[in-house]
Amino acid sequence: MSHTDSLTPLSRVRLAVDCMGGDHGPSVTLPACQSFLAAHPQAELVLVGTPEGLAPALGWPRCIHVHASEVVSMDDPVEVALRRKKDSSMRVAISQLKAQGEVPAAADACVSAGNTGALMALARYLLKTLDGIDRPAIASVIPNDRGEFTTMLDLGANVDCTAEHLLQFAVMGSALVSAVDGKTEPSVGLLNIGAEAIKGSDVIKQAADLLRAAADDGHLNVYGNVEGNDIFKGTVDIVVCDGFVGNVALKTTEGLASMLAHFIKEEFTRTWWTKLAALVALPVLKRFRARVDPRSFNGAALLGLRGLVFKSHGSADAFAFERALVRAYDAARNRLLDRVRDRIIETLEAMPSAADNASGAPVAA
Amino acid sequence: MSHTDSLTPLSRVRLAVDCMGGDHGPSVTLPACQSFLAAHPQAELVLVGTPEGLAPALGWPRCIHVHASEVVSMDDPVEVALRRKKDSSMRVAISQLKAQGEVPAAADACVSAGNTGALMALARYLLKTLDGIDRPAIASVIPNDRGEFTTMLDLGANVDCTAEHLLQFAVMGSALVSAVDGKTEPSVGLLNIGAEAIKGSDVIKQAADLLRAAADDGHLNVYGNVEGNDIFKGTVDIVVCDGFVGNVALKTTEGLASMLAHFIKEEFTRTWWTKLAALVALPVLKRFRARVDPRSFNGAALLGLRGLVFKSHGSADAFAFERALVRAYDAARNRLLDRVRDRIIETLEAMPSAADNASGAPVAA
Repeated sequence: MSHTDSLTPLSRVRLAVDCMGGDHGPSVTLPACQSFLAAHPQAELVLVGTPEGLAPALGWPRCIHVHASEVVSMDDPVEVALRRKKDSSMRVAISQLKAQGEVPAAADACVSAGNTGALMALARYLLKTLDGIDRPAIASVIPNDRGEFTTMLDLGANVDCTAEHLLQFAVMGSALVSAVDGKTEPSVGLLNIGAEAIKGSDVIKQAADLLRAAADDGHLNVYGNVEGNDIFKGTVDIVVCDGFVGNVALKTTEGLASMLAHFIKEEFTRTWWTKLAALVALPVLKRFRARVDPRSFNGAALLGLRGLVFKSHGSADAFAFERALVRAYDAARNRLLDRVRDRIIETLEAMPSAADNASGAPVAA
Repeated sequence: MSHTDSLTPLSRVRLAVDCMGGDHGPSVTLPACQSFLAAHPQAELVLVGTPEGLAPALGWPRCIHVHASEVVSMDDPVEVALRRKKDSSMRVAISQLKAQGEVPAAADACVSAGNTGALMALARYLLKTLDGIDRPAIASVIPNDRGEFTTMLDLGANVDCTAEHLLQFAVMGSALVSAVDGKTEPSVGLLNIGAEAIKGSDVIKQAADLLRAAADDGHLNVYGNVEGNDIFKGTVDIVVCDGFVGNVALKTTEGLASMLAHFIKEEFTRTWWTKLAALVALPVLKRFRARVDPRSFNGAALLGLRGLVFKSHGSADAFAFERALVRAYDAARNRLLDRVRDRIIETLEAMPSAADNASGAPVAA
């Protein structure tokens, strides 16, 4: 397997930032950018926003300002983002990507905290998908019991997936993990259920076959089926599933985490004695919270496009938004786009597709 | 809505217990039965197992012993349970149900901690599904942020569901919650994803239409779409989804809970100082743990069959197995089977099915 040999990291990385996106806009994105720049001397930023929005960032070093007159709101329908607000900060930020041809501020990746549907639709419309990829997917990381991270995709871009789509997700996820986490052959698990009677739908069974074939050819490190609890166990580096299942799993864990936090708080504030116990336990509880703080792993990748787009949680604060910037920076610096392209050529184009099999197989009689 | 008017609780409830099932067999199930009997003077048990397995329970009051010579193991394939082990404790326990006609020990419900696939297959084969129900479903409860429980189904019996199946789950779930939790009109939510671009698959959209129609007719209390985090928020009493999604969501939360428990333990045992903090915080942490102890809500219902079957977690201890007995007892006492039948007649048979609509609608021209 040779896909990482010639991929030397970029020496300079330029990120385009939609400074108006998210619940809080520039009041969160600009402080995050400032802190990010201080920590990353090889980074440059293209700040995209309204002149008023960007005013606090006037004169910042290693920053280019690009103005946009409109903002896609968190509840704007996709149609509005695509067809009406043609000068939105989100759209202008995506347009800065090198993939867009000769643009003055040619950026290596783009980051927005704007609404997911609009971002995916605009990115897909402006950038198009890579050859060999039918549908882009959303990938994010989740902390696991081994003290590492599990990358999961798709998290909501595609509700109905074919087996081929799931294979493409595995390929893109492998490229992402090798770029961002530095693992050359990350392991891939196919999310399935373990009940005795019924082990997955037909699509899942077909996807398992495709993954096995790719693994046999030496193109993917495939573990096999995993179940929901394996996500947090850290059984594999990458968990592949359709967007409906992935989105439900992710939001369910958010719901559980928030309920547990609420219960812990209630128990520790019940009486003067439990409040005292809370005081004693505070440093421990804080360390615990830091380990599972969702802000630390903010920043989902939109994979499969001819350009790198990262999505921050809409409610991110400056700390969380900076994490999304760092993820985009790491991905761009380690040439995620080239890695995805390489893996597609190696894995997908080397494999006879289901259609080829059907038509090209020699017929006996 | 009249479905609960004439359903007076049973004065005596008899449960058939597969004493050999689960990871631990009689060493767990018998102590659970003993404790359950002490707490429920109106209950009788049919203890099913091998003579040796049941020996410790000889002479117990309000108990009938029924012998079985075989045991379905936790990893026996469905075929073995169905075709080979015809005198298994699981099979004999299900056969005690009243629905089976004239059996000497005629029980109102059956409880087993044996393997899910085998239990579902045997129950389906022996009991058959109710009129109006295509597929049985597995329903369980999950604690929520409101201090109540959210009932979720299906949790893994059906991987590919049609909109009609999801409607049937809603009907059965409503009957379960009204029987066990005493809510006359529990609210139903359809599990969906919230991304802007794509709000669910075609099946989900059709199911939403069917649920809305049932709600408009006054037969179901339908809230509408819910997302993964709503399960723990307690937005609705019942969350309906296909078995693949439900199983993944459930196992994912198990994985998260287990990781968090591990992290908390690690943080509190890091140094002598954190161990001291743990000692001080112990009563608070214990109260917290009790609130989210999965053992307290053990006991999933297999719904849609002509008989009540409850499934305990295979790894249940005596405390957890007793909870499953209590859930089965409450369901039988409050005549869950009659409630499901009533609701099916009211809701499903009152509604024109999709097929009827297609063929029976007046044609204009």
